[in-house]
Amino acid sequence: MSIDQQWDQLTERFAEIDDLGHTVALLGWDQQTYMPAGGAAARGEQMATLERIIHQRFTDPAIGQLLDDLAADAAALPDDSHRASVWRVVRRRYDRTTKLPEELVAEMARTSARSFDTWVKARAANDFAMFEDDLTRQVELARQQADHFGYEATPYDALLAGYEPNLTSADVDRLFNPLRDRLVPLLDSLRPALDRVNDDALRGDLPHDAQIALTEDVVALVGFDLATGRQDLAAHPFTTSIGQGDTRVTTAVDPGNLAPALYASIHEAGHGTHDQGIPDELRRTALGQVESLIIAESQSRLWENLVGRSRLFADDLLPRLGKYFPGKFDSVDADALYAAGSCVEPGYIRVQADEVTYSLHIFLRYEIERELIEGSLAVADLPERWWEGMKSLLGVEPTTDADGVLQDVHWSTGAIGYFPTYALGTLLSVQLYEAALADDAAIQPALEAADFVPLLAWMQQHVHRHGAAWSAAELVERELGAELSAGPFLDYLEHKYHALYKL
Amino acid sequence: MSIDQQWDQLTERFAEIDDLGHTVALLGWDQQTYMPAGGAAARGEQMATLERIIHQRFTDPAIGQLLDDLAADAAALPDDSHRASVWRVVRRRYDRTTKLPEELVAEMARTSARSFDTWVKARAANDFAMFEDDLTRQVELARQQADHFGYEATPYDALLAGYEPNLTSADVDRLFNPLRDRLVPLLDSLRPALDRVNDDALRGDLPHDAQIALTEDVVALVGFDLATGRQDLAAHPFTTSIGQGDTRVTTAVDPGNLAPALYASIHEAGHGTHDQGIPDELRRTALGQVESLIIAESQSRLWENLVGRSRLFADDLLPRLGKYFPGKFDSVDADALYAAGSCVEPGYIRVQADEVTYSLHIFLRYEIERELIEGSLAVADLPERWWEGMKSLLGVEPTTDADGVLQDVHWSTGAIGYFPTYALGTLLSVQLYEAALADDAAIQPALEAADFVPLLAWMQQHVHRHGAAWSAAELVERELGAELSAGPFLDYLEHKYHALYKL
Repeated sequence: MSIDQQWDQLTERFAEIDDLGHTVALLGWDQQTYMPAGGAAARGEQMATLERIIHQRFTDPAIGQLLDDLAADAAALPDDSHRASVWRVVRRRYDRTTKLPEELVAEMARTSARSFDTWVKARAANDFAMFEDDLTRQVELARQQADHFGYEATPYDALLAGYEPNLTSADVDRLFNPLRDRLVPLLDSLRPALDRVNDDALRGDLPHDAQIALTEDVVALVGFDLATGRQDLAAHPFTTSIGQGDTRVTTAVDPGNLAPALYASIHEAGHGTHDQGIPDELRRTALGQVESLIIAESQSRLWENLVGRSRLFADDLLPRLGKYFPGKFDSVDADALYAAGSCVEPGYIRVQADEVTYSLHIFLRYEIERELIEGSLAVADLPERWWEGMKSLLGVEPTTDADGVLQDVHWSTGAIGYFPTYALGTLLSVQLYEAALADDAAIQPALEAADFVPLLAWMQQHVHRHGAAWSAAELVERELGAELSAGPFLDYLEHKYHALYKL
Repeated sequence: MSIDQQWDQLTERFAEIDDLGHTVALLGWDQQTYMPAGGAAARGEQMATLERIIHQRFTDPAIGQLLDDLAADAAALPDDSHRASVWRVVRRRYDRTTKLPEELVAEMARTSARSFDTWVKARAANDFAMFEDDLTRQVELARQQADHFGYEATPYDALLAGYEPNLTSADVDRLFNPLRDRLVPLLDSLRPALDRVNDDALRGDLPHDAQIALTEDVVALVGFDLATGRQDLAAHPFTTSIGQGDTRVTTAVDPGNLAPALYASIHEAGHGTHDQGIPDELRRTALGQVESLIIAESQSRLWENLVGRSRLFADDLLPRLGKYFPGKFDSVDADALYAAGSCVEPGYIRVQADEVTYSLHIFLRYEIERELIEGSLAVADLPERWWEGMKSLLGVEPTTDADGVLQDVHWSTGAIGYFPTYALGTLLSVQLYEAALADDAAIQPALEAADFVPLLAWMQQHVHRHGAAWSAAELVERELGAELSAGPFLDYLEHKYHALYKL
């Protein structure tokens, strides 16, 4: 076989794997949006079967052989050529994936489907005990995975690398330590002033359907294309790619408060524009789906926080509120709207957390995940450990399990090692946003005119275009000539919040 | 390997094939309900990949070997034992499926996805020419399939058998000829009296959301369980099984007319109760999904026509109309409602056709399909042939392609040979309904009290319980000791319509 034929073989195999992966994405999307309750067990079997087939195809020794045969050709190509990037990404994924036995992969899928269902019920019943067995099983399976993957410092590193290529807890600590060192004092300095700002402007009797209409308008405004995507409802909002031309975002509505739907929608639209920005020529290749969750989160946070919670955006939002909620926002001005979207309130719920306290929620999960995986914390002790952490990091008192350890979907689906990418992506969002504004002078005036095209175009050019080719660390080095860093985020935060709270 | 181990192997293989089949069902459901327009091409690739994998697994020579090895054991068991039924059904499907080359199966899936998309656009644009190339390709692919399957009298027989085990055009003619012989005179006798009955009672300004609420109430009333199923909107209503505990029905709303949504919902709920009635122990086996489309249609028609369009049901419906459409049905009584749901109007659209003219729409499609497949009709000549047939069978004049040859989804998805099962299922529905009432004296009084449980229970016991074990002909023989026949349907129809139209 010629080299070109071998590349074609690899391409063909990944087109099929991509189809199967997107099919699993649809099974998952449906599970969280429209599936009737009775379908949970069958869905678990279906996802397990598909995951097993993907695993079989992905770990086919023929792929290892192709990688070996094409190694010299790939090494002779520039790093950023398509083939060199495909080779690099497939090599990493193949080496990782072939370490897991097929039966473990199927068991993970089955457990996740069952455990997700249990979590939904446990959260509704506000009863951690209902979830304890399934979570214990998830932790066991995560440890088994780590053992198969192998690790140097801690088994947790083996899990982290599943969400961000090559990420280790040493990397996380290098960024989280300075973050904590300035965030905690920032929050302390805000505490006496918390009553200067509130979110009343976003609260009221705000009908479900009008919130949906508003958020569909807003996601389209920031550039999410509804001809190649859609927005639905989900208990825990998420974004998923179903393939080229089909990106699904989700939101959740609180009829007494616009904030959850509004910021979930802009956040998910950020992910959505990322998926929609993947070039057509990368589709159905190994580079066609975002792999770095830090890069992924940089896009959602950029649109949610740096755009959506900016003072400028309040000007764009205000007339829309008048349109979708006639009369209800007549006494609100853009300053009040901005303040409401940015006000700080140490609370229980991560996804409702403000920009200042958000990372503190992540620190807690990061600590707990390490303790669970390293064996120093038992699942049964989790609720107590949770409230100790919440008290020490955020200063809040214990409340219900539903608002505590049961609030997040992740662990129920076996996603342990995922949370740190949220805070790290937030750091990257500020680095990218500042680079974009420094690089293209047209972006700032466009933002002032509610035109988000130039900012989105910069992200497409410098981030989306690469697909899965680079890790976050590689992207930052190549595109910004920098390292991933907490400094720009902290500078932005201190500047914004000192002004808003008149410190 | 022991005999039991071989049975276990067969079971395991079919559990996996069942998972993959239900996954394809979800891809298809989503395509027709929520998928954004941009996703059509990717969905085509995904469906083709899944169909190819199912085909590979299904035609694995290991299944042929298991069938051979288990033949003696199966033959020694009673026909209606689980293993004997599995063996019989798998043998038939294996022998049929192994005749198709894998590449043809993938090409069929790809063509269907593209062609469905083209059909949607062509229908919207009311332009048959847009659809001509894709339909021509579908006819070519259908002919290729027929050649691979083999046939005696006509290639069309090879296609028919894909929708009803062993059905031939000789069987169809045996039933359609007497049907036509009494239906055409019945319609002729009604023609001078058509203005005695109209459907005004079901028309008005009837908001979309209220129609959805009403139809969800009605599908639940007739026994469709919304905890293990759901109803959504689709341009062309259908029902699909996504696996145990997950049955999806769909409906379509005309805000000026309640009839389309109401009868589509009851029709699909009939299919839905059928799927929900499959016993748990048949799930993920070769018997777990309805295979006979005649039996399938007997259930939808039974609930739609014999229940939904009955005079008794008008009593159940009337208070619900008052609830969901306050004030709008105040001047309507149950007699007028019954008449509106049963009035005869020779028209263009099959899915809106009344009980008398419905089969005439099927006759036309049956004739055209045979002509296309046997080569006596070119796709380009279809619109003209359509209107000739409509004129001669129904006496209606030509109108648009959208209301003519483009109205049905079937051919766009490659489903040629499917239509006859609609009319044949309608015949069976009357045979089953009458058998149920004769067999269980509790059914009639229950129907009079709007209690549909005894009728549904009879269907569960005599129809649903068997899963895919029997063809329609076999079921009728085993459960009714009869042959499939047009007589009971014609008797029912003449009796009902002579009374309604005071002939």
